Amino acid sequence: MKIPNFADIRAAKARISSFVNVTPLLTNNTINNISGAEIHFKCENFQKVGAFKFRGACNAVFSLTEDEACKGVATHSSGNHAQALALAAKMRGIPATIVMPDNSPQVKKDAVAGYGAEIVFCDPTLEARESTLEKVIEDKGHTFIHPYDNYKVICGQGTATLEIMESAHDFDCIIAPVGGGGLLSGTALAAKSIKPGIKVYAAEPEGADDAFRSFAAGKIIPSINPNTICDGLLTSLGQLNFEIIRQYVDEIFTVSDEEIKAAMRLVWERMKIIIEPSSAVPLAIVLKNKELFAEKKIAMIISGGNVDLGKLVF
Amino acid sequence: MKIPNFADIRAAKARISSFVNVTPLLTNNTINNISGAEIHFKCENFQKVGAFKFRGACNAVFSLTEDEACKGVATHSSGNHAQALALAAKMRGIPATIVMPDNSPQVKKDAVAGYGAEIVFCDPTLEARESTLEKVIEDKGHTFIHPYDNYKVICGQGTATLEIMESAHDFDCIIAPVGGGGLLSGTALAAKSIKPGIKVYAAEPEGADDAFRSFAAGKIIPSINPNTICDGLLTSLGQLNFEIIRQYVDEIFTVSDEEIKAAMRLVWERMKIIIEPSSAVPLAIVLKNKELFAEKKIAMIISGGNVDLGKLVF
Repeated sequence: MKIPNFADIRAAKARISSFVNVTPLLTNNTINNISGAEIHFKCENFQKVGAFKFRGACNAVFSLTEDEACKGVATHSSGNHAQALALAAKMRGIPATIVMPDNSPQVKKDAVAGYGAEIVFCDPTLEARESTLEKVIEDKGHTFIHPYDNYKVICGQGTATLEIMESAHDFDCIIAPVGGGGLLSGTALAAKSIKPGIKVYAAEPEGADDAFRSFAAGKIIPSINPNTICDGLLTSLGQLNFEIIRQYVDEIFTVSDEEIKAAMRLVWERMKIIIEPSSAVPLAIVLKNKELFAEKKIAMIISGGNVDLGKLVF
Repeated sequence: MKIPNFADIRAAKARISSFVNVTPLLTNNTINNISGAEIHFKCENFQKVGAFKFRGACNAVFSLTEDEACKGVATHSSGNHAQALALAAKMRGIPATIVMPDNSPQVKKDAVAGYGAEIVFCDPTLEARESTLEKVIEDKGHTFIHPYDNYKVICGQGTATLEIMESAHDFDCIIAPVGGGGLLSGTALAAKSIKPGIKVYAAEPEGADDAFRSFAAGKIIPSINPNTICDGLLTSLGQLNFEIIRQYVDEIFTVSDEEIKAAMRLVWERMKIIIEPSSAVPLAIVLKNKELFAEKKIAMIISGGNVDLGKLVF
């Protein structure tokens, strides 16, 4: 299994730089006082489509050869990757087909359709998603862009950390949430390539702790019936992601949904920015393990800001 | 009635510069596409205490002589001015007393107390607030800092517009919400001093349209039983504020609470930033009057981001 190297991530940055937002690194005095640490939030909620996922999708789409590209791209997703791939394809001017469960929220269907992608609906099961996607690929000759277990996607996600490491700060550690592991693997590769001594930590909800268990066991242990408010972290680790994580990540921490909600509310109230539950997991682990993180200079990735305002958890 | 001049506003900027945040001027492609205009949002929701009010309170507190200052400051407010004055007094190291209605939300009481101010509770009527404040001032020798009908407060609020006008952009117009008129009068003074040809517009909820009616009548017509979700805009125009507004503001527009909610939701969903209802009124008037603002370069002041997450209007 070939693992991306630092040159791949730098190449991704050059490839996508005219399409992605360089997002700000924000701090907040109150949260620093409460945590006892110095936290710099990398705000991918301000990224295009409202999530870091656009970086990876963009790198995958713009890495295709002309021949591949004109045949289009496809994926199955009801989340941020669907919108990200749809927008990246639109920017390259190529077709995209998104397989979505027919019970997806209307706002997500509208967003994908708004970027000009074709939507193919299926039953809300993993089997139906995979078989429907297979048929789409067979019929249309599309290239499948996996949401996280994909070389180019991982490199794209790593570009957020390149921006972090190019800031004027010398960080002790960097913390990212982990679901399928796309963001975490890209983050770990980029951070350790630039500063081998930096600690890379992962943050995971207790109700979907397959990464924590897989990391401890040294082999992938998939999630069974995950249950958490972090709708972006329900998936199990990908193969390539796991290989990178076991080599480059120092530790995985878990927290409860109640701790995640409290951290999310703190960010909304004090920073006046909208972050999705998945994005609050890194802050929750710092607030839960204050002695470990005391006086540390921490980079923390806010993965996205896509929440359904009609279904708030407060 | 002496009206502040541009030198006063520049002096305010110099006086408070080491205490206030220079807030960002943000844009959003989707909102530009929807509105047909180019809107730059001046994000005072990222100001200290979460609102522009800190600028004015800070300028008032740091303009006091040493003798005045050591005797402390007081005001009556249950809103952003209470927190703003408490923090400004704390920064100068002087006492502050805030008269608050006893039915104020606990979160606001906690915030004011957290900045070290003394709170004196009163019945929730204007009469009780004023008489209680008078007694506090008599007993303690505090200086009363009015939330908006105050020369130094107006100059402080104008500093947000100084920052806007010092950006690289050449704006056609600037829009601010209007309640008591502190922000609007400071905005109008600063904007017209720097660029006399700029249009200055005010945005007001239909349910609290005393500024609209006063502007048309040429005299102050106070609000009676105002009714709007914009809790920051319930107050009637101040005397000094009105004098400035009648001279320097070009037009006042009103919108319904439904239009304000829609504009607020658009900002939350698309920009991923938390703004309070009062802050959405300027965007609502642009979306209601698209032909008037088409292709205009607009600076719009986001007044603050203090919302009770437990009582969302969505």
